Amino acid sequence: MTNTAPIDLRSDTVTRPDEHMLAAMAAAEVGDDVLDHDPTMRALEERVAHLLGTAAALWVPSGSMGNLISLMLHLQRGDRFLAPRGAHVLAYEFGSAAWLAGGMPQPLDWDAGPGRPKAATVRAQCDGSTGYDTLRTTLLCLENTHNGAGGAVTPPHEHAQLAAAARDSGLRIHLDGARIWNASVALGLPPAALTVGVDSVQTCLSKGLGAPVGSVIAGGADFIREARRVRRMIGGGVRQGGVLAAAGLVALDRIDALAEDHANARLLAAGLAEHGWEVTPPQTNIVLAAVPDVGVTLQRLAAVGVRAVAMSGQIRFVTHRDVSRADIEETLRRIGEARI
Amino acid sequence: MTNTAPIDLRSDTVTRPDEHMLAAMAAAEVGDDVLDHDPTMRALEERVAHLLGTAAALWVPSGSMGNLISLMLHLQRGDRFLAPRGAHVLAYEFGSAAWLAGGMPQPLDWDAGPGRPKAATVRAQCDGSTGYDTLRTTLLCLENTHNGAGGAVTPPHEHAQLAAAARDSGLRIHLDGARIWNASVALGLPPAALTVGVDSVQTCLSKGLGAPVGSVIAGGADFIREARRVRRMIGGGVRQGGVLAAAGLVALDRIDALAEDHANARLLAAGLAEHGWEVTPPQTNIVLAAVPDVGVTLQRLAAVGVRAVAMSGQIRFVTHRDVSRADIEETLRRIGEARI
Amino acid sequence: MTNTAPIDLRSDTVTRPDEHMLAAMAAAEVGDDVLDHDPTMRALEERVAHLLGTAAALWVPSGSMGNLISLMLHLQRGDRFLAPRGAHVLAYEFGSAAWLAGGMPQPLDWDAGPGRPKAATVRAQCDGSTGYDTLRTTLLCLENTHNGAGGAVTPPHEHAQLAAAARDSGLRIHLDGARIWNASVALGLPPAALTVGVDSVQTCLSKGLGAPVGSVIAGGADFIREARRVRRMIGGGVRQGGVLAAAGLVALDRIDALAEDHANARLLAAGLAEHGWEVTPPQTNIVLAAVPDVGVTLQRLAAVGVRAVAMSGQIRFVTHRDVSRADIEETLRRIGEARI
Amino acid sequence: MTNTAPIDLRSDTVTRPDEHMLAAMAAAEVGDDVLDHDPTMRALEERVAHLLGTAAALWVPSGSMGNLISLMLHLQRGDRFLAPRGAHVLAYEFGSAAWLAGGMPQPLDWDAGPGRPKAATVRAQCDGSTGYDTLRTTLLCLENTHNGAGGAVTPPHEHAQLAAAARDSGLRIHLDGARIWNASVALGLPPAALTVGVDSVQTCLSKGLGAPVGSVIAGGADFIREARRVRRMIGGGVRQGGVLAAAGLVALDRIDALAEDHANARLLAAGLAEHGWEVTPPQTNIVLAAVPDVGVTLQRLAAVGVRAVAMSGQIRFVTHRDVSRADIEETLRRIGEARI
Repeated sequence: MTNTAPIDLRSDTVTRPDEHMLAAMAAAEVGDDVLDHDPTMRALEERVAHLLGTAAALWVPSGSMGNLISLMLHLQRGDRFLAPRGAHVLAYEFGSAAWLAGGMPQPLDWDAGPGRPKAATVRAQCDGSTGYDTLRTTLLCLENTHNGAGGAVTPPHEHAQLAAAARDSGLRIHLDGARIWNASVALGLPPAALTVGVDSVQTCLSKGLGAPVGSVIAGGADFIREARRVRRMIGGGVRQGGVLAAAGLVALDRIDALAEDHANARLLAAGLAEHGWEVTPPQTNIVLAAVPDVGVTLQRLAAVGVRAVAMSGQIRFVTHRDVSRADIEETLRRIGEARI
Repeated sequence: MTNTAPIDLRSDTVTRPDEHMLAAMAAAEVGDDVLDHDPTMRALEERVAHLLGTAAALWVPSGSMGNLISLMLHLQRGDRFLAPRGAHVLAYEFGSAAWLAGGMPQPLDWDAGPGRPKAATVRAQCDGSTGYDTLRTTLLCLENTHNGAGGAVTPPHEHAQLAAAARDSGLRIHLDGARIWNASVALGLPPAALTVGVDSVQTCLSKGLGAPVGSVIAGGADFIREARRVRRMIGGGVRQGGVLAAAGLVALDRIDALAEDHANARLLAAGLAEHGWEVTPPQTNIVLAAVPDVGVTLQRLAAVGVRAVAMSGQIRFVTHRDVSRADIEETLRRIGEARI
Repeated sequence: MTNTAPIDLRSDTVTRPDEHMLAAMAAAEVGDDVLDHDPTMRALEERVAHLLGTAAALWVPSGSMGNLISLMLHLQRGDRFLAPRGAHVLAYEFGSAAWLAGGMPQPLDWDAGPGRPKAATVRAQCDGSTGYDTLRTTLLCLENTHNGAGGAVTPPHEHAQLAAAARDSGLRIHLDGARIWNASVALGLPPAALTVGVDSVQTCLSKGLGAPVGSVIAGGADFIREARRVRRMIGGGVRQGGVLAAAGLVALDRIDALAEDHANARLLAAGLAEHGWEVTPPQTNIVLAAVPDVGVTLQRLAAVGVRAVAMSGQIRFVTHRDVSRADIEETLRRIGEARI
Repeated sequence: MTNTAPIDLRSDTVTRPDEHMLAAMAAAEVGDDVLDHDPTMRALEERVAHLLGTAAALWVPSGSMGNLISLMLHLQRGDRFLAPRGAHVLAYEFGSAAWLAGGMPQPLDWDAGPGRPKAATVRAQCDGSTGYDTLRTTLLCLENTHNGAGGAVTPPHEHAQLAAAARDSGLRIHLDGARIWNASVALGLPPAALTVGVDSVQTCLSKGLGAPVGSVIAGGADFIREARRVRRMIGGGVRQGGVLAAAGLVALDRIDALAEDHANARLLAAGLAEHGWEVTPPQTNIVLAAVPDVGVTLQRLAAVGVRAVAMSGQIRFVTHRDVSRADIEETLRRIGEARI
């Protein structure tokens, strides 16, 4: 008998809450988080702030909103901001960085490695001799891991060099840490080691960690106070959010388990390479594969029940809690059998 | 022994999910609502669309976001829109109608009754002879029940006249129906009878109906498709939202129970009047009371464990699922005893 | 022989530069005002700053831009601002105050007289007990003379009371002084007496003063420095602007001559009243007349070569340099003859 | 006796109106261009539309405003637009493309030559397989000549290929033709040959052509009608603009004279090369020279009365009407003498 159940490798956002998480949600103490704060929300925010080494934190419904609120607070009208080419804020947030935050982006080349600009590039962009004298460059936006670069990790010494270059150039720093937990596990370092020098960081609970809904902005107390205000402006405040925060707290107990996703990504990449695919060796839970025709390959994969997406002109596979080692083996078996 | 537990009459948003709702949340079938829709979300959206008489609907995290997305879609840069004085979109959404939707508001006087402008006023505002020739007036934004007017109901014949005036003047119509369920129950009419002629309507599940989180925008299929896109732009899309939608579905079973909140509001108003308060007779679940010094009175109420808020220069009490008839009697007892 | 030449009373913006002004334009010393300032521009800006009692000033192409830049600098995203009902920034600038400056306007009733809100009204709007707690009110925008109120003058003691109310409430103050010269002449006071306590003021050289193009923003040195930056952002910086500034300098020599326009306005109003028109007695150079059907009356006036416009639901006539006392008498003759 | 007068090679915007131009300004027939159009403005707009091969045109105070209005009309909220790296709309307009027009820019590499992206690059950016699926790419913004690339010319066959790529990808096309007259003269082709397939083009009269103030947007009749509305929104409408339009009409008689500026630029470049400078051979009136330290070299030049600016990390010299062949020779003499 053949296993034909679809294997969903489109994103780690597809993970579903398990029984333990659902029980925590049902048991959560809640309040009206818009009027006077919900106790479980408060607990979640404090825990994330602690993990990321900041003074305060704020729950938001999505990572996109976390990035948006942060950029809205960091940028004044028309400010120029720097971000690695292909960053989520540039490519996957419907232009909200420009349209709502009013920022003029300057993409940075990946001259230090996949998804990673050099610190010298940051400095050069802020050097007056470029003639970009009419624009105020005020923000460096980093992304760790970098999604469009295949879950690429920025190591702490490079992060520190980038942060120093930004500081020396008078820039604030926002870190899109949607998958900072993956970077932390891959490096064997606490997440706070990856946020040194940043003014704000956004992280997601609903990707690899498996919470159903929610992300968190972390930063200084004043920044978070103002973020709370902007969150209401755009309608991101919720009432008895504790039901979601409870799931987030459970999710945060599962950071170490991301190592399995990383192992599964390596297994997948190795297997694809054996089948002749051109694969970038994965650093975390994302596998990018270059194929002659992305659309055709996606269709062929779908035909054998393997779901993936296009990204950066390649095929992206993402491993996560809801796919096992056996699922990866089955994925490779189907791809081999169908000679994709 | 004296009952000293605080009685929270600040808003119907403070209601907490009960066991039945929590059980539904835990049992919900979920998917990734950003990638390919969550089945429980889908069921909730279809049910709300059906109840409100529209072709489609879209879940959003809050009523403020529901109004914001609607205004963003209806308004082009600099368009003028009409709304009753004190409308939620004017007063309680941090200016997002202007700042994010780019609309120039024109408040309308309540010349037909509390919270209700006359249809003739809408027509006059669109009459070229006002000399407002440089502004394109393109939208009428209604609110039923009208929060700032004390939960005031717009009856269906007035709504129809307003809708006709808007149509004749080339305006689109958005209805802020955060508490349309209260209007429906107060009038003994199905909610769809109160949305005749509108292009969009926003309604909340987390007010009197008691869901922990969530509101819904209802409208035409094209409108909702574009609203889904704008929802992602501002970060309002969530992943396994079915856990919240399940609570929303339970909430929608409880519309009729709002009649108890209305009875409690009448009881409260009558009791306050007996204590010498100047109270507007409530039409739904909101009681507005005029007092000499709002701040002082709020403090005195708080001192006896009765929580309320300031609104429209008065004290606002809101009855809801989590306050019983006994709680209202106790509220009146405390106010009487403390001679507030 | 009958005089049939059209008499243009639509606006004082229709005035054309005379020979003296043209000669000054041709003789002007110019520079590149975007790169390093034009000397004639500089002289004009200094003179206006002196006249209006501010530290600095900045030329802009139009009064609308002067107001827009000022509001953009005073308002942060979503801030609420107060302005008299029918103010130019609310009604005649295509919604730019909301759309570009991001401000949420609150129109103020004319409870102190035509175009004039009471200081107590300003205070009440900033009183927390209104429940407008989610909006930050940060700016009072005044207009003197008030165009939509028929060139109505705010006297200095009322201005001072309004300014004090704004200050006490933590508001900044912008004065739309497009026709402040008319107010100054009508009151027999220097214009600086009418700008007491304001943070910025905008005034036009191309209305009654007769320059072909140009307005000026006046304010503090820091404010004007930032205004220069925003002017370039929206493309309002010009190169050899000295050709226009030279005309502006000539225009500023002609402030006293506005008294003739005021006399002509009174003559027109008196004559119209004799013909049975319902006319508001003019305080400066604008005459508002209430008629049963504005559109029909405008057409009948046009048929006898008298041009006017609709404003505030009435007919607006404006006297200016290019219409003489004889033109006004001829206007009245034609209206009388045609029994309009 | 030594010539010590400063020679201003900072920009062709420093040109001053000559006597012929001033006489035309003084003789111009004018009207109120905001109320009912100024006849000289109208004549100027018609002439530019004819020269650029479009149905209509609109005067604006500056090239920055011309680009801004065009982008505001072409872009919807959050739309992505493509422009060559270093384009004026990206680098020198204070971020208005993002902040006011709401566009998310994607810089294109100069893979076809200085300032020139390949048509294939445009196509690749619009290919869905890039995974940029959340952004709507809707506009290609070209610049001819390209300022930041040293006045580089895009030849007509490349322009046509880019236009075809844009069309095939569903993009609209805006051409920043601030110096299109230079491109026209350099190529020996009428300017309309360089606007094939574009939806809008902006051109400046106050650069090489020598008018004191003004630029023009050219495009279809509907586009220009809406541009007129947006021009008022941002305060760019002026009253008796005919005084400026008259200068613009004279300027348009002088297109052929740009050939002298080009000859002077070649002379300057050749002379600098003889002095050992690293110079890009100029195609029009801009000379870019790479030097070890831009700031130091600018100071040394200033010390001998030669004014230039930093651009793209190099020194930019611009030749124009107000510098003669003798001035260029003197410039080279001073540089040689000071061994700069």
